Amino acid sequence: MSNPVLVEVLRGPLTESRHRGSVCVMDADGATVFSLGEVAAPVYPRSAVKPIQALPLVESGTADRYGFGEEELALACASHGGEPAHVEVAQRMLGRAGLDVTALECGTHWPLFQTATQALARSGGAPSALHNNCSGKHAGFLCVACAAGADHHGYVAAGHLVQREVRAALEDLTGMALAEERCGTDGCAIPSWAVPLPALAFAFARYGTGHGLAPERAKAAARLRAACAAQPYYVAGTGRFCTDIMLRFGARVLVKTGAEGVFCGALPEQGLGIALKCDDGGTRAAEVTMAAMIARFLPMSDDERAVLERFARPTLRNWNGTEVGGLRPSAALV
Amino acid sequence: MSNPVLVEVLRGPLTESRHRGSVCVMDADGATVFSLGEVAAPVYPRSAVKPIQALPLVESGTADRYGFGEEELALACASHGGEPAHVEVAQRMLGRAGLDVTALECGTHWPLFQTATQALARSGGAPSALHNNCSGKHAGFLCVACAAGADHHGYVAAGHLVQREVRAALEDLTGMALAEERCGTDGCAIPSWAVPLPALAFAFARYGTGHGLAPERAKAAARLRAACAAQPYYVAGTGRFCTDIMLRFGARVLVKTGAEGVFCGALPEQGLGIALKCDDGGTRAAEVTMAAMIARFLPMSDDERAVLERFARPTLRNWNGTEVGGLRPSAALV
Repeated sequence: MSNPVLVEVLRGPLTESRHRGSVCVMDADGATVFSLGEVAAPVYPRSAVKPIQALPLVESGTADRYGFGEEELALACASHGGEPAHVEVAQRMLGRAGLDVTALECGTHWPLFQTATQALARSGGAPSALHNNCSGKHAGFLCVACAAGADHHGYVAAGHLVQREVRAALEDLTGMALAEERCGTDGCAIPSWAVPLPALAFAFARYGTGHGLAPERAKAAARLRAACAAQPYYVAGTGRFCTDIMLRFGARVLVKTGAEGVFCGALPEQGLGIALKCDDGGTRAAEVTMAAMIARFLPMSDDERAVLERFARPTLRNWNGTEVGGLRPSAALV
Repeated sequence: MSNPVLVEVLRGPLTESRHRGSVCVMDADGATVFSLGEVAAPVYPRSAVKPIQALPLVESGTADRYGFGEEELALACASHGGEPAHVEVAQRMLGRAGLDVTALECGTHWPLFQTATQALARSGGAPSALHNNCSGKHAGFLCVACAAGADHHGYVAAGHLVQREVRAALEDLTGMALAEERCGTDGCAIPSWAVPLPALAFAFARYGTGHGLAPERAKAAARLRAACAAQPYYVAGTGRFCTDIMLRFGARVLVKTGAEGVFCGALPEQGLGIALKCDDGGTRAAEVTMAAMIARFLPMSDDERAVLERFARPTLRNWNGTEVGGLRPSAALV
């Protein structure tokens, strides 16, 4: 059995490629609003649950203790492009806890944003762990450890205080026990616990509304959502889907991408959570699918719909800038 | 109906992603040796047919007239990484025809090879059309036009002498009439004519053996194959599948990648041609599938098999270098 086609890639007169996958939209009471494909399979949420992984940073009082504002909280939820401003905020976060880049255990890579990579090389620089797209999340983890008086070394391990708190938040939001036999290691070295899409969509419906959450947790989620809405540049960066969508829709949409074609989101005013996975891990198809889900479930003006259409049906151009094709959501999504 | 899973992506205890697609292996008499999935659908071969697109350069006598050796002929078949040596040979080819970078109509992009991009930026440079992965092919096209005394402007258009000759070579090798209603525009602005995988596999079986081709065409194909086998670095570059495989297997394997998950190849000693398409356009899965096909159809030593295994079952590591998963061909391939 196979999942349905979510996105078609067109070139000239033909469909050149096809992306299959599954999608689920839930409300905060746990009712299924939309479901497509085999949604019972466990999915590693990867970076798509960073907004949930950032809850301990706020709930524990760490964010207040270190004087974090919207930029820091947005960066704690981010898969950022490694642009100078991202690096600066991550460094600032570490500094508040008396740490520096050497404390980060996420590993080093060149900035995801190609222009930032070119600028860094042009200046004779080399990347550090601060350029890792997860450095803001990891800086937040380190701050939680330090504020709790715990040894921060090994904070990426499942047994460390920080990951235990992150796991508890994920279990609470998803309503599921996370199992060792469904745990993989993420690109940034922390555990990624696989859960089915309905549990992820449910978690984001609760995250977006606070419905069914303890008051302090609901308040922390609202504060993180507000930070992402106010500073979406710090959640991703230049030219990125998450940033561009939240710049346009503000607090009406929370979206967070994850590796291997995962995407989660919340439509707080509608009380809905969205979770999707492109079978083949394709980011381009996950973005088109998320745009189609927003178009389907978020009431919006004609102007907003026209903007969203550019994300739901992006154009493909060749190196000369000539339009040669495009992507489109399948009929099952729209 | 959907194509079978070709490649699974594993992380920890679970399969995280799956790539579907179709594969066909043919001999030079047109007999099907292996077929998996829906192979009747037309597929844009993209850059996978560059070795065929380079035939007019040799057959017309242009390569001899301009004194091209193995480096130039390999680069004419290449999707290269934009490394300095690639750029230099492309420039040299243009110079022989009295042209320079301004004649290229393929468009400009930063080098595919990230280290080359970083080095170019570090030196204060910026990319030109010579860095385009297709610049060698385009330099070859321009040389064909100039040697024929034709105006080279607009050589990327379907109606230009060069593209008419390329089209005729593709029709001859595939044994199919190429149809306008199955023609798209490639990333480098030339026409890409869609044909089913069996026709592509048949074309590569003939390309690899010369069987059924006019003597001059068979001779040109053999010369281009020998150039790729002798100079595989110029067919792709550092760390690239095509280069690494041909470095290891020499003239026993010709492989050429194309965008959107297409891969073509020939096993000349076995008289076989291989063509495959990953439905979702994923290069990582196309490479694993091609490695599995080589492992299946090419006799080899245990040492060679161990090397090939690294391409058929590549490891995934996180940014710290820790192994977190890997890719593997599905049971249907092995």
